[in-house]
Amino acid sequence: RLSALCCQAVTLPALSCVALCGGTHGNELSGIYLVQETLKNKRKGEAMEAVTVVTVISNPRAVQQRVRYTETDLNRCFTYAMLSAPVSERTPYEIIRSQELNSLLGPKGSGQAVDLICDLHNTTANMGLCLITYADSDWICLHICKHLQARTNDPYTSVGKHGFAMEIGPQPHGVIRSNIFTAMQEAVHLMLDWVRLFNSGTQFDEGSVDVYTMVKNIDYPRDPYTHNITAAVHPELQDRDFCLLYPGDPIFLSFSGEILRYKGKEPLYPFFINECAYYEKGVALLLARKSKVKIPAIQCSRA
Amino acid sequence: RLSALCCQAVTLPALSCVALCGGTHGNELSGIYLVQETLKNKRKGEAMEAVTVVTVISNPRAVQQRVRYTETDLNRCFTYAMLSAPVSERTPYEIIRSQELNSLLGPKGSGQAVDLICDLHNTTANMGLCLITYADSDWICLHICKHLQARTNDPYTSVGKHGFAMEIGPQPHGVIRSNIFTAMQEAVHLMLDWVRLFNSGTQFDEGSVDVYTMVKNIDYPRDPYTHNITAAVHPELQDRDFCLLYPGDPIFLSFSGEILRYKGKEPLYPFFINECAYYEKGVALLLARKSKVKIPAIQCSRA
Repeated sequence: RLSALCCQAVTLPALSCVALCGGTHGNELSGIYLVQETLKNKRKGEAMEAVTVVTVISNPRAVQQRVRYTETDLNRCFTYAMLSAPVSERTPYEIIRSQELNSLLGPKGSGQAVDLICDLHNTTANMGLCLITYADSDWICLHICKHLQARTNDPYTSVGKHGFAMEIGPQPHGVIRSNIFTAMQEAVHLMLDWVRLFNSGTQFDEGSVDVYTMVKNIDYPRDPYTHNITAAVHPELQDRDFCLLYPGDPIFLSFSGEILRYKGKEPLYPFFINECAYYEKGVALLLARKSKVKIPAIQCSRA
Repeated sequence: RLSALCCQAVTLPALSCVALCGGTHGNELSGIYLVQETLKNKRKGEAMEAVTVVTVISNPRAVQQRVRYTETDLNRCFTYAMLSAPVSERTPYEIIRSQELNSLLGPKGSGQAVDLICDLHNTTANMGLCLITYADSDWICLHICKHLQARTNDPYTSVGKHGFAMEIGPQPHGVIRSNIFTAMQEAVHLMLDWVRLFNSGTQFDEGSVDVYTMVKNIDYPRDPYTHNITAAVHPELQDRDFCLLYPGDPIFLSFSGEILRYKGKEPLYPFFINECAYYEKGVALLLARKSKVKIPAIQCSRA
């Protein structure tokens, strides 16, 4: 049956409601100010839209305190188990908040859920503009990615997280850089343009998208007793996100001057190189395999 | 009398004991790892030195939590009033710690105090290597600055803080970048080389040093009700620390796209542009006047 359908566009329901989320991590400022700015312009009274955009500050307490999270990482709280966990006085704020967000934007997996979530993030890594999707067969996300790739300089996509995150860097956490804000703003506009075109019945051609699929991560070298890191990312690797890393290439320079090299057998693509928030997770960089994913032509079923 | 002395070197006491302090701000990582590395090499058993180097992690609690400070900024706790304040259960940790450090390295203003404190800092601003001294007539600091300027690419000096801080950027707080670590390590080695030469009787010639003297600061534009910032540093100003800013030059780009310009009457040198920790202080950048300070020849009085 699938082969008989190969020349026709895949039809998918309209994306009537899009959630734009900033401040899932309270010290990643671009999304926070972009959501606030979007909200301000809404209040000025925009015309009726073919798409409803819901703006959300995901973790307001963390935003107020300018920290990634107050008790636990909100971005890890959207499992079905956590969303249905009983709440007590000792439940971390972020778990309570994830349940609130599930009421607001979900319930997860139900028909009432918003059609598309765009979760805005920053990284200290030099990743440019990167879309992170949870599956390599989400044609909506991959078509949005293709749309952005044709119109901006450096969008990538990768697989591994739940949801659809837009990750932009480099920007220190707790800092807003105008160029990063503008890049995110343009990407969000392009994404919403695509959704409007899709909802209005435009057919998007088949094609292909480069996808980076996470293979493994590498931690910093650490002192076995204190667990303190003993090396920094090598200057030749720093800022080279999505540039192929070959076996034998330097990855760390220890504080005493020793070069440590990549011992893998396969060349892979590093990303999230030296991301601030990943020190505590024991991750100095992630490594990905690159592939070309074919995406079918798609069209809104309503049109 | 002064004119009669002008051809002779100013004699100053030897610098027998130098304190190298990292982690005054717990999320500025270069100094923390440099102090730990220096300590490790000391343990390996260095020969007797012409100078004693005391290494200190200034704010161990903040270092452990990877935050600037736990209750109050330690860097603002070294006034005589705070150093002699009575301690109660409600005294912030950083005030208690400043009194401990005063016992260890001071007492401030006494003959027992260490001879030179080098306090290691990072900034998210693109300031390169910058020495911050508390007075423009501290010949030791200014000679060290001259020594470093001749041997590295970009050291500057400025006036306005108490103590002698070495400030290096750009580096996000909570992140260590190998190039910044190496630059700090080299600067500290050069500084200690200078101290050894000085202690051994070397005469340092008279000369001059460019000094940036802080004139005023500029805050981000803010919403009068929420106090939220409404603009980011303009892309044309971002990363242009120590490049002359002229009246009419853009300084901010608002989130709605409006350019805001420098309204001062005098061209001044911006620095600490978009420093993460200064958002809470209401400082988007500092402005300085540049001058050439003449420094006399100096020599150790002991030699």
